[in-house]
This record gives sequence, structure tokens and C-alpha cells, in this order.
Amino acid sequence: MIYLDNAATTFPKPKSVLKAVKTALNDYGGNPGRSSHKFAIKTAKEIYDTRLLLAEFFGCPKIENVIFTPSCTYGINLVLRGLLKNNSHVVISNVEHNAVLRPIVGLTDSGIKFSKARISLKNDDETVNNFRKKICKNTKLLACLSASNVFGAKLPIKKLAKLAHDNNALFLLDAAQTAGLVDINVSKSKIDFLCFPAHKNLYGPMGLGVLIINTDIKLKPLTYGGTGVKSRYYKQPDVLPEKFESGTINVPGILGLKAGLKFVNKIGTEYIFEHEKDLMLKFYNAALENIAGKNIIKFYTNDSLIKKFPGVISFNFKNKNSELIASILDEFNIAVRAGLHCSPLAHKFLGTLDCGTVRVSPCIFTNKKQIDKLISCLIKLNFSQN
Amino acid sequence: MIYLDNAATTFPKPKSVLKAVKTALNDYGGNPGRSSHKFAIKTAKEIYDTRLLLAEFFGCPKIENVIFTPSCTYGINLVLRGLLKNNSHVVISNVEHNAVLRPIVGLTDSGIKFSKARISLKNDDETVNNFRKKICKNTKLLACLSASNVFGAKLPIKKLAKLAHDNNALFLLDAAQTAGLVDINVSKSKIDFLCFPAHKNLYGPMGLGVLIINTDIKLKPLTYGGTGVKSRYYKQPDVLPEKFESGTINVPGILGLKAGLKFVNKIGTEYIFEHEKDLMLKFYNAALENIAGKNIIKFYTNDSLIKKFPGVISFNFKNKNSELIASILDEFNIAVRAGLHCSPLAHKFLGTLDCGTVRVSPCIFTNKKQIDKLISCLIKLNFSQN
Repeated sequence: MIYLDNAATTFPKPKSVLKAVKTALNDYGGNPGRSSHKFAIKTAKEIYDTRLLLAEFFGCPKIENVIFTPSCTYGINLVLRGLLKNNSHVVISNVEHNAVLRPIVGLTDSGIKFSKARISLKNDDETVNNFRKKICKNTKLLACLSASNVFGAKLPIKKLAKLAHDNNALFLLDAAQTAGLVDINVSKSKIDFLCFPAHKNLYGPMGLGVLIINTDIKLKPLTYGGTGVKSRYYKQPDVLPEKFESGTINVPGILGLKAGLKFVNKIGTEYIFEHEKDLMLKFYNAALENIAGKNIIKFYTNDSLIKKFPGVISFNFKNKNSELIASILDEFNIAVRAGLHCSPLAHKFLGTLDCGTVRVSPCIFTNKKQIDKLISCLIKLNFSQN
Repeated sequence: MIYLDNAATTFPKPKSVLKAVKTALNDYGGNPGRSSHKFAIKTAKEIYDTRLLLAEFFGCPKIENVIFTPSCTYGINLVLRGLLKNNSHVVISNVEHNAVLRPIVGLTDSGIKFSKARISLKNDDETVNNFRKKICKNTKLLACLSASNVFGAKLPIKKLAKLAHDNNALFLLDAAQTAGLVDINVSKSKIDFLCFPAHKNLYGPMGLGVLIINTDIKLKPLTYGGTGVKSRYYKQPDVLPEKFESGTINVPGILGLKAGLKFVNKIGTEYIFEHEKDLMLKFYNAALENIAGKNIIKFYTNDSLIKKFPGVISFNFKNKNSELIASILDEFNIAVRAGLHCSPLAHKFLGTLDCGTVRVSPCIFTNKKQIDKLISCLIKLNFSQN
């Protein structure tokens, strides 16, 4: 199989990640933060080390502000529901994933209001300006993805964070597609809340996310319960990270993420980025050159966008429904994702709400041969489907 | 190490569980329910099979009503926050874990009210009667644990569920300690909401729970986001299980749980129960016999309670703080849990809020030799600490 659906989840996982998960189940089987026997303490130490590594990687000065969540989505929900009150207003981009859009739409029942700012593919200042225009006196938060999961457009994070703070608002970044592939530093970019999954560009297992809190503003928890600290109190303790980590945490996932993070750190995000960029530029240019231009294949990207972020590319083929093309590629054992990618806003922006797009997303394990195979399949498809 | 902290999380995990998690990472790496390529479909099929097995095991007629959650705690929060509205009233027992207590205390900010009903250790009807007395016209829910995580007292579930329904209320069961060790059938016992973790008596990995919904009453989700279904809609889809499973689910955990469930099914809950009962009765009686009676060791259980549920036993030793005793046992490489076990209510009930208790909890892998070692350590401790 040629796996080009890495934006949904990376595959394969590095061998070190597999080994770490196995070791977690074998050697780190104590419930961390619950009991005080050596076996539990040993596990707790590994969890702490993972927080430390994550804090360093993402430039967070406080280790305890690294919160393990079940998913990136959970982290986003936690911030939105924990921060916003009746009449609060949020500005999001017009290409958000449902992970940001749906929790906010859900909150409109509680009187939360939101506006969508149009992104510009050509000019970051225009994007920032469009966000600025949507800010009002009740705006408490700017929330956006760092790069579109559909067509890879990257947003001007630092400028948007500054815009938020200049207007007494906070900034939430959904880094689902970029964490591990693009350098993100919450201190340097002044990101108040950073959410990302373990299982994408950090090469950890599915079922785990991280929220990094880089502000002193207090959030309400999303789930309450046993935390292993201040057990005597009926109220949820106001201590990080435990306040936001009720219930037993995902030890095998966290140890897997630790190994994934070390893997990324060792190779370097820059190297991985260049690797993926080379492959995606190759795919884009070869497809355009060999498949008779725009009438046959339509890309929702360009050279400049790919150079800024190569993690995902979307296209359509012969005006066919994207699902059909993906299913034909699947017969050739090429795994891509078609449809709406949980992002109706992005498809509305692209004008592809009815047909969806075919999405190709590489990872560090993707190679040139696989991209050649994809191109040759599309060429074959062009002739066979005439 | 002699591991007797299985009520926190079972250890070791069966070999089949380790193998299943490894296989999940190697062979089931597609994101289920997201893409439609063979690799993702194959994973989705495994997830479906796990739901099916769980539905059968717990007597749930609808497979789609088996919801994967990040923890038992999350499931409890989902039900409480998704069901209760301003002025709703809940009755809980007076020995609840913080997983039930703290979310409810958190909800009092939103006008939710609750009462605690005293359990009787001798008479189930008295327990039911005490719950009945607390019911008022706004009571929407009875919520309780199936057995205390501190001293193992088992609650009369079927009778409490009937009481709830007779009063137009619903019934939520926190089966953290019993799922996998005691037969639970949501249909026969008319349990509306059943929450349990994967990593305790079902021998799956940490970081996963299950919520089984056995009612048509609609809940609001706790987290909103991408679900892979009805992606076009900005609103959270009203389709189970996806409505409650936003974000990427814990595939390795779920496949591990599947193997754990098969393991339990193969041995049989009855066999495991008898095994643990024999060991705990042995421990209880030998300790009482050999450690000079109540002045030295004080048990918060009795023969009858152990026979009803042998999963946990609590005791104190020589009026010493429980943490001290646990730390001495730890030096003998015996892992038990001391303190409050995230359950101040249970300790208030026992009168042990200041000293906590030492908790011993077995699993199927615990053997007589280990219990003998525990007893001999306590005997040694009795003399050495004189």
C-alpha cells in the first residue's frame, strides 16, 4: 500500500514508538499520580518527562501547563467551553475544521457569538485585516487553524496573535496539521492556547492530544473527577495539570508520543518539512505537466502555497466526484482521502462543497517512488476513463 | 513486585492485549470513519467488532449506543452535563468516588442540586429506602457506583434502577470497579447509562473508557467537532455513536480492550470473581487470625461484604497513617494503594478521612503465594514496629 493519508493520521509509526508503547504496557503499568508505590512513581516520572520534552519543544515556560487531552478536538473544546461566557464573541477564519467550528456553533445556544474572517491566499496582511474588521467590543478570542487540513494554506499566526492581544482578546491555535512539521513556539508567537494531536506529525498513537496553556487566564475544566491530588476536596482542584486531567490518563499513548517527539526532534522538523516539500512540489509539477493541464486535473494550491506548507494538497480530476477518484486509487493500493475532510468551510471557500476534493498528504516515510506511482496511476486513469 | 493495586489499574495485561495493541499500531493504522480507503475501512471494522462484543457482553441491544470515551470519568461527565438542566436534582450515594461527586459539585454553579443517600452495609432495602427519601419532584437522575472503590461495598443496582424509573428519573451506573468482574446487563437491570474504564477488570490499556446508553433520552455532547459523518453540517450530527466521539478515537486502546474483553470472556467473570474471592477471604481471615485481632489490624469489610464483591479490601494497621504502611510494604516490593483513593465521601463514611486506608486489590493474575507474602510482611511489621 502507498499511504498518502497522513493528514488523517501518520503511518507507519516509527519503530521507537511501537517499542515505547509495548514498554509502557510491560514496564509502566502503574497508574501515575494515583498510588505512591515505586511502580506508579516510575510511570509518573515518564509522564513528567514527556511534559518536559513537550514544553521545551513548543517553548512553554511552565511544564505543568502542558495538559494531556484525549484529542486535539478535546483541547479546543476545553478552551472554548472553559473560557467563553454569555455574550462572548469569537473570531475564526472562514476555512476552519469542524473541530473549531462545531464547538462554537454548539455554544451559540449559550449566547456565544462568532464571526468568520476571510483568509487571503496572497497577502497575510489582508488576512489579518479581515480578522481585525470582525473584532468587536465583546471579542474574547481569536481561534484558528495553523494550516488548512484541506488545501494547506498557512495562516499568519504571529500577526493574528498580536492582533488578538492588541484588542484584549486571547489567541487559540489549532495546530492539528502543523505540530511537528513546522516550528511552533508559544512564547515567541505569543500563542495563549495551543492544541494538537499526538498521532499526526508527532508520530504518536491515535487517541491522544495536547493542550499547552500559555496564559494565566483561568479556564473551567471540561471534565471533573478524581485527579490524585487534593482528593479530600469535593471541588475540582485548581492545580495544573491535574485540574484538566480527571480520570486515568493514556499512559501508553503518552509514552508513544514521547518516542514520536524524540524521533521528530532527531530528524528535525526542517528536514521533514523539506522532504515533504520536495515530494509535493514534484507531484504538483509532474501532474500538471503530464496530465494535460487544468481541464483534466485541478489543483487547489500552487507552488507558493506548497513551499509555505507541504503537508496537504487537494485536487480534483476530470470533474469527477472526489470519492470516485479516491476509490479508483484505492484499487491501485494508493490510500488518499476524498470528500469534505470534516471541513465544510474550507470547501465552501474552494467551491467544492458538492464534489469534495482528493487530498494527498505525505509524511517522512513517503518516498519519490510512491509519488511516481501516484502520478502514473493518474495518467493511466486519464486514458482509461476517456 | 507483588502488585496489589489492581483497582487503580490491572497489571500485568494479558499477552493477547499486548499483541492486540502492537497489531493495532502495525496493521490498523488508518483513521477509522475518516477515509474510505481499504486501510481505514479495515480499522473501522475492528472498531465496530469491539462495539458489537461490548454490546453483547453488557446486554445492550443497540451497537451504536456503545460509545468510546477517553475514560470512565469522561462518560460520567458526559451524562451529567449532557442531561441535567437548571434546577435538575440528582441523588447519589454517600460513598461516591470523586468521578461522580466532583462533576455534580461543579454543576451546582449552574443551578443543579444534589442529595446524598446513606448506604446500608447490612440491608439493601434500607439503602434503597434512603435513596427514596432523597427523591424530590425535580429529581432527574440517580447516579451511583456499583461497588465502592475503597471498601468494596456493593450497591443494589437493580433495585435502585427500578426506584429511579418509578419516579420518572434515569439511572447512571459508575461501574469502574465491577465491569468485567461482575455480570452487568443494562437491559435486565434497566441501567440507562453505564460507564466503565477499559483498563481495570477488562484488562485493556489505560486511557480508554466506554459509555453504554440504554435509553432514548437525548444527551448534549461534551465535545463537538469532526466526526467523519455529515461533515457538511456546521452542527454536531445527531447520529450515534459519532455524536459523542468527535476527534480521532483511541484505536490501539480499543483493539487492546477488545482483546481484554475476549480474555475475560474466555475465563469467565464467574471464575475470576471466585478466584479473587478466595484470595481476599484468605487474606482477611489469615490477617485477623495471625495479627492479633482488631487492635493491630482494622478491616473495613467483613466476610459477607467480601463474598459479595472481592475486588477491593481496605484496612488500617496499628493506627498508623495508611501512607506509612503502604510505603513500608513498598520496600518489601508489595504495591498497594493508601490514602483517600479519590473518594473523600467513602472515607467520611468509614471515619478514615484523616488517616486514609491501605487498599489491597487483586486481579486474575494474583496468586496465593503473593497473598501469603503480604500476610507474612504484615506479621513481620507487627513485631518490628512494636
